[in-house]
Amino acid sequence: MFLRIDRLPVELPVSPKVDPVAAKNVQELLGGRFGEMSTVMNYTFQSFNMRGRDKIRPYYALVSNIAAEEGGHIEIVSAAINSCLNGPRTEFDDEDPSKTPFKDLPGGIFGGHYIASAQTALPVDSRGMPWTGDYVFSSGNLILDLLHNFFLENGARTQKLRVYQMTDNPAARMMLGYLFVRGGVHALAYAKALESLTGVDMKKMLPIPNIGNAVFPEARKFMEKGNHMQLYRFSPNDYKEAATIWNGAAPDGYIEGLGGKTELEFVDAPPEGGNLANLAGIASSFAPNYAPEEIFEIANKLYAKAKNL
Amino acid sequence: MFLRIDRLPVELPVSPKVDPVAAKNVQELLGGRFGEMSTVMNYTFQSFNMRGRDKIRPYYALVSNIAAEEGGHIEIVSAAINSCLNGPRTEFDDEDPSKTPFKDLPGGIFGGHYIASAQTALPVDSRGMPWTGDYVFSSGNLILDLLHNFFLENGARTQKLRVYQMTDNPAARMMLGYLFVRGGVHALAYAKALESLTGVDMKKMLPIPNIGNAVFPEARKFMEKGNHMQLYRFSPNDYKEAATIWNGAAPDGYIEGLGGKTELEFVDAPPEGGNLANLAGIASSFAPNYAPEEIFEIANKLYAKAKNL
Amino acid sequence: MFLRIDRLPVELPVSPKVDPVAAKNVQELLGGRFGEMSTVMNYTFQSFNMRGRDKIRPYYALVSNIAAEEGGHIEIVSAAINSCLNGPRTEFDDEDPSKTPFKDLPGGIFGGHYIASAQTALPVDSRGMPWTGDYVFSSGNLILDLLHNFFLENGARTQKLRVYQMTDNPAARMMLGYLFVRGGVHALAYAKALESLTGVDMKKMLPIPNIGNAVFPEARKFMEKGNHMQLYRFSPNDYKEAATIWNGAAPDGYIEGLGGKTELEFVDAPPEGGNLANLAGIASSFAPNYAPEEIFEIANKLYAKAKNL
Amino acid sequence: MFLRIDRLPVELPVSPKVDPVAAKNVQELLGGRFGEMSTVMNYTFQSFNMRGRDKIRPYYALVSNIAAEEGGHIEIVSAAINSCLNGPRTEFDDEDPSKTPFKDLPGGIFGGHYIASAQTALPVDSRGMPWTGDYVFSSGNLILDLLHNFFLENGARTQKLRVYQMTDNPAARMMLGYLFVRGGVHALAYAKALESLTGVDMKKMLPIPNIGNAVFPEARKFMEKGNHMQLYRFSPNDYKEAATIWNGAAPDGYIEGLGGKTELEFVDAPPEGGNLANLAGIASSFAPNYAPEEIFEIANKLYAKAKNL
Amino acid sequence: MFLRIDRLPVELPVSPKVDPVAAKNVQELLGGRFGEMSTVMNYTFQSFNMRGRDKIRPYYALVSNIAAEEGGHIEIVSAAINSCLNGPRTEFDDEDPSKTPFKDLPGGIFGGHYIASAQTALPVDSRGMPWTGDYVFSSGNLILDLLHNFFLENGARTQKLRVYQMTDNPAARMMLGYLFVRGGVHALAYAKALESLTGVDMKKMLPIPNIGNAVFPEARKFMEKGNHMQLYRFSPNDYKEAATIWNGAAPDGYIEGLGGKTELEFVDAPPEGGNLANLAGIASSFAPNYAPEEIFEIANKLYAKAKNL
Amino acid sequence: MFLRIDRLPVELPVSPKVDPVAAKNVQELLGGRFGEMSTVMNYTFQSFNMRGRDKIRPYYALVSNIAAEEGGHIEIVSAAINSCLNGPRTEFDDEDPSKTPFKDLPGGIFGGHYIASAQTALPVDSRGMPWTGDYVFSSGNLILDLLHNFFLENGARTQKLRVYQMTDNPAARMMLGYLFVRGGVHALAYAKALESLTGVDMKKMLPIPNIGNAVFPEARKFMEKGNHMQLYRFSPNDYKEAATIWNGAAPDGYIEGLGGKTELEFVDAPPEGGNLANLAGIASSFAPNYAPEEIFEIANKLYAKAKNL
Repeated sequence: MFLRIDRLPVELPVSPKVDPVAAKNVQELLGGRFGEMSTVMNYTFQSFNMRGRDKIRPYYALVSNIAAEEGGHIEIVSAAINSCLNGPRTEFDDEDPSKTPFKDLPGGIFGGHYIASAQTALPVDSRGMPWTGDYVFSSGNLILDLLHNFFLENGARTQKLRVYQMTDNPAARMMLGYLFVRGGVHALAYAKALESLTGVDMKKMLPIPNIGNAVFPEARKFMEKGNHMQLYRFSPNDYKEAATIWNGAAPDGYIEGLGGKTELEFVDAPPEGGNLANLAGIASSFAPNYAPEEIFEIANKLYAKAKNL
Repeated sequence: MFLRIDRLPVELPVSPKVDPVAAKNVQELLGGRFGEMSTVMNYTFQSFNMRGRDKIRPYYALVSNIAAEEGGHIEIVSAAINSCLNGPRTEFDDEDPSKTPFKDLPGGIFGGHYIASAQTALPVDSRGMPWTGDYVFSSGNLILDLLHNFFLENGARTQKLRVYQMTDNPAARMMLGYLFVRGGVHALAYAKALESLTGVDMKKMLPIPNIGNAVFPEARKFMEKGNHMQLYRFSPNDYKEAATIWNGAAPDGYIEGLGGKTELEFVDAPPEGGNLANLAGIASSFAPNYAPEEIFEIANKLYAKAKNL
Repeated sequence: MFLRIDRLPVELPVSPKVDPVAAKNVQELLGGRFGEMSTVMNYTFQSFNMRGRDKIRPYYALVSNIAAEEGGHIEIVSAAINSCLNGPRTEFDDEDPSKTPFKDLPGGIFGGHYIASAQTALPVDSRGMPWTGDYVFSSGNLILDLLHNFFLENGARTQKLRVYQMTDNPAARMMLGYLFVRGGVHALAYAKALESLTGVDMKKMLPIPNIGNAVFPEARKFMEKGNHMQLYRFSPNDYKEAATIWNGAAPDGYIEGLGGKTELEFVDAPPEGGNLANLAGIASSFAPNYAPEEIFEIANKLYAKAKNL
Repeated sequence: MFLRIDRLPVELPVSPKVDPVAAKNVQELLGGRFGEMSTVMNYTFQSFNMRGRDKIRPYYALVSNIAAEEGGHIEIVSAAINSCLNGPRTEFDDEDPSKTPFKDLPGGIFGGHYIASAQTALPVDSRGMPWTGDYVFSSGNLILDLLHNFFLENGARTQKLRVYQMTDNPAARMMLGYLFVRGGVHALAYAKALESLTGVDMKKMLPIPNIGNAVFPEARKFMEKGNHMQLYRFSPNDYKEAATIWNGAAPDGYIEGLGGKTELEFVDAPPEGGNLANLAGIASSFAPNYAPEEIFEIANKLYAKAKNL
Repeated sequence: MFLRIDRLPVELPVSPKVDPVAAKNVQELLGGRFGEMSTVMNYTFQSFNMRGRDKIRPYYALVSNIAAEEGGHIEIVSAAINSCLNGPRTEFDDEDPSKTPFKDLPGGIFGGHYIASAQTALPVDSRGMPWTGDYVFSSGNLILDLLHNFFLENGARTQKLRVYQMTDNPAARMMLGYLFVRGGVHALAYAKALESLTGVDMKKMLPIPNIGNAVFPEARKFMEKGNHMQLYRFSPNDYKEAATIWNGAAPDGYIEGLGGKTELEFVDAPPEGGNLANLAGIASSFAPNYAPEEIFEIANKLYAKAKNL
Repeated sequence: MFLRIDRLPVELPVSPKVDPVAAKNVQELLGGRFGEMSTVMNYTFQSFNMRGRDKIRPYYALVSNIAAEEGGHIEIVSAAINSCLNGPRTEFDDEDPSKTPFKDLPGGIFGGHYIASAQTALPVDSRGMPWTGDYVFSSGNLILDLLHNFFLENGARTQKLRVYQMTDNPAARMMLGYLFVRGGVHALAYAKALESLTGVDMKKMLPIPNIGNAVFPEARKFMEKGNHMQLYRFSPNDYKEAATIWNGAAPDGYIEGLGGKTELEFVDAPPEGGNLANLAGIASSFAPNYAPEEIFEIANKLYAKAKNL
């Protein structure tokens, strides 16, 4: 079972402008082959399907627990897309829908952001093509699945680095910086798991590409807090066995002299997280409705009727 | 963010036989257009994308919270598939992989269960075609999104009823009975939400098709416990506002004289849940590995090294 | 069987400019999940597949007849796309194909309009992705199919409203205004059908989104003629039973004080319709051919040979 | 615009048994690359998109008119599938849905026939994969489009011949025999159109494969009536110019000594057609509903209320 | 089996600028339905699958041999895309990856060129949609397969002509000119094969569209060398029987007075070909790596260690 | 450019029966995500796209050369499928096509083998879904691409092992045994390339799964000849630099005491290969035609006319 916390892993800044081109590019990191839909679903299905689980719980716990963290990653990538699409609007936008409020959009956008959704994220890639279950690899062979995951994390990092180079939008970049660091943790965790099973020192191959996270100011900020050393536990009571893999000294080069820690740390709780932005309504996009005052009043009355919330 | 609990919503029985044909049909309920991948992802993206959220929190909380429950539903459908594919095997299966242990499979199976995964679930439908992000509807218009969800739940129920008619596998049927009941709760919740906003009595349209859940023994069992009256809260602290919608007397006909309750009940916690089955390893499918003793020993050593787990 | 009339439902204006960006956006309304390919094919297959048809002919006739009208809707959406792509050209365009007549196209176009077709419509959405048969829902359960259709019409209306906001092209907007009205008729017809079967007053939920058609001048024009009150019959002799559903007083708010009628009207014929535009040939796109004079002469000779046409 | 006639091109026999394997194979001819969805949509879009139409009306009329006939072909292929799936059932089937009426289905079926639809046709191919708009070719070059259509008709014939060899179901075979003949007419019509434009005698290449229709008793029956010589006009008043192409002596070998005619005949009306089968309701598939008596009564009341139908 | 030669069919000029819009359009000719992936795979599978091969070797040899040539065509189209994306860069590009070197890309590009690949070709079309095996037609009927191939070559030519009109990039145009000529050879070869089997003079239909290659300077250059008269043999020792089809006088109009030959020529070797461009590394795209000096040194050492290369 | 040799890598035995179920399963290894279409196209595009090629030729040569070998692998997998589908038929099959020669096919087949092709291979997977260009990974980062290739080879091996367990068809198994060995060579080659670049000893992870090839008699046969030690060069003159990577002692465990060699061997030529089977014509499938004698005679005449072949 899954629980939900109404918070983002970290709070994102408001995008200073409506930036649909950035939003389109960031979609690759949500619904592309190497997007967060892929990370969450690969690890989730591998955890559902792991055979002999009782005998290999450290690996089961690691994969299951990272799967849970990735749920927050589809959320934060979606939040970054939504921030880009929303821009600084906080007041209710009530442009006349019989005019053409969305006529002069730039060429490089994803039209679905304006037609299918009300300028919000969808589980598609930067082409607008949907994420597909064929991106899930769940062979049941523990080493092959872990090798896949190690490759997936590095492929995802490479694409994130490239999207970083395509935008200076601060909401997108804060999300990227955070995920450079968290993806780095996951890549290292899978490297350590593989090493424990095969003796092959996969850690030495990192980072792929060969440029450290600390080069990127938005990532560096999180490393200074030591986030690159921490694997969180995303469960009230379970998956503690992941700590048997995530421990010991961090490999040379991984620390980059930041955060003041040298030992990997298993944090027995999720991160505190940050606030979700409240997306402004857009009356001209009928979201949540054209003349929304009526439904606001209905919602208020529901509250009034309920006593102890 | 998301947390995970290492339990199923309810415990499933062991399938008395290896039943890959049932497994194939049940895949529709996981990765098909009306499968649980669709319910979880529709509600998740709608919750990510809801505009004016601060002013319409009851609806936000309802959709967000049901999204979290649906996470457990992809888990239980996967568990049913895995139970069908695994059958009663508990001992490690070590047939000779240079022979043909999987030669005489029935015609009506999904080959991917034997080639891509080690006889376990994949996010595909009964054709073997992958779930796709194009199944997600997130228009941003609150009424249209809720209408979609009401339709989706009823479409999902119809397909589940039909898969029920195609199998008597007890693991599949236990899952189906449970989801008839939970899906019924969700359909009613969306009906009530729509009614609060539009005044249209959508409840009166239920059940679709016009056959009550109590006809099905596996569902009746859960109704006798009153599960059809209960909306659980799947969060440590959030989404309590959903109770402003899920309350009051259940509609005529919905109760079917079972469970002893007449008022809808908002349960301030997730269900207790049941144990996940431990899937037997299959050496001949290399899951978790061909000669797995070595990795079992490695896992044991990891435990030994770790102190407080 | 199907017959064809060589006329559009209404005549469209000439687009004052070549407008491929509008054409791309309008493609969503042709080949997207909520495009007219979906309406025509959903209703067509539901009519092919309706079980117990002899006992429920009013519903059979309604669905079959609307399916036939939707055939004209894929035609008019295609005509709007073609008008946008063609612009005011009437003379034969014979630019030098060894030059680059299509070099400086705007970024936000669909390349297939220039590569696959000769600047004309294709059954794809605004991403350029093809319409797919998976958009067809035909469960066989009458209430569920009608609920689907009610949802589909409202989803289609929402997307049309949004495309309206993205373009002021008069050909696109005339088509949109007409389809706002015709889609409104279909949504109300399915609402009435559902109400007759379940007693639920679905009409009260309309319009979705909560903005009337009369706000839009291009729709208002058709309402002033009373077109929103009329369901046409698209058959020489059949489907008359649809009148048992489409009759009586229109619901409050639906009439919007236009057209002078208050009763729904079943029109026992198709609309008169309007002329199809003659698309200019484009020699540089080899449509109908590079140096087309020869085939014009051949066509003329065929005429000459035939006597009574 | 399109009109509809509530009749099939020809009446099909009742399938003597429930034959879902035949139904699956016949799906290829509906929703496959060479299925009737492809013929109807290719010709429909080519007719929407034809440039310089006023100067080449014989070709416009030919393509438009054949498009209309193909509408009846998706109908008759669907009817054949439905006949196979329905078998001889005429009484209402009310098996207990809490049992497993659909448990022992053969391996070679398409599961969607039992899960998505109520044992009726869907726009998918024999893999269950949906028909897609990418099957439509509409280049705008008249010769290339006609060449495509000539190839499409011959590819479709080849696949129909092969499905014929896979089933002896009389409903499937009657449909096949009829379409061998009608497809033969279309292939010859496109051959003649190409010949008129290029002087190349494409007729000489027919039949592809090199086996005449008269070999197949179900086709021979229609040839004996002369149907292979007749191109029907599917419009109240339009497309008469197609007669400028479809006339003259039939080529050697095409006539096969059947039907008593030697001249091609343009029939100025659609065929008389045959009755559509009334598909038995299946209560256990909830089609049109579980306990359908109530909706039958509602339908009756609608009739009673209406006066002149 | 296949061998490879490290040369392009012809050498392409350096693109004078980074031209991602041209690159996107050219992708249609690589991964689209009528792209070179389709030609190579259609002919390859037809050659794998040809029944009765020993009795029809001239046709087997023709199809097999053209398949081999098409391998070089996916290479040259990819090289043209790469040239467009690379532009004149020869020095190593080491922009700061923590900046935004790829921020202001034009709207009409394919994002995958910057995110998935390091500004290089992918097997997708101009929409970014992947080439698919469903584009392969291999019916086994020799005449139908050859008719398909004849159609495919002409469809491919039409799309190439249109892409030509969309770009004046010299790398793209050199590739196009070469492929106009080579595609013309293949179309004529299939026409002659069909004629030999059916007696139908398909040659007379060429060129489609009715504009000769000599109109295009980049094609004319190759015709002046006589390349349009030559079918090369792409095998050390096999497929010589193709010469039984490719021989005799070229048809009227095909020669266009260029190259000085009037007889078709079977060249018993592949063309000499030209150099592949060396694509500049892009450190900021991590291709081949971020700080590539290290791997350059490693490669050098490997050389040093090896003796006789 | 590519050349072709009219031979298979090794000759396959005749399948003792028509075995369409084996053929369907083997399709996964041709057109699936881990099929040979994926290996050939991944390496081919990586070689087209490698940046800084002149400085890293050993890697360029390795990837390019393996790409060429994989071309032969799509050929041999197709040949195995064709052998399964053809069975021992050598005489021309001329069953009456107006009968039902293909009526009682088993449930677990791929219908396209009988409808789309004449019982021959298609570029689809075991679901019948087409291979897609989205399976190609070409990031441009050398280490990431090689890591991908290492993973791909091991994923492909795992799926091949599982298909092996599903069939005892000797044609399929001979192909599998050969490809276990060749895939093992490629996995080791990529491991060595990665090791040279990163110092990580990837070889130690092999084999994945942890079962040696020598367990399988069909592979053992090729190991006894030393084929697992040999990397062939598939080019008249190029790619010799691959020898700088493929050399030295084979790792412990890899040799399995077979073949008598301990050093890896770079063979400066392709393997000798074996004969392609001549597939029997099937008149009832119209392959190469219904009454093929005529085209056999035509082919003979072409020969007669040609002098020096």
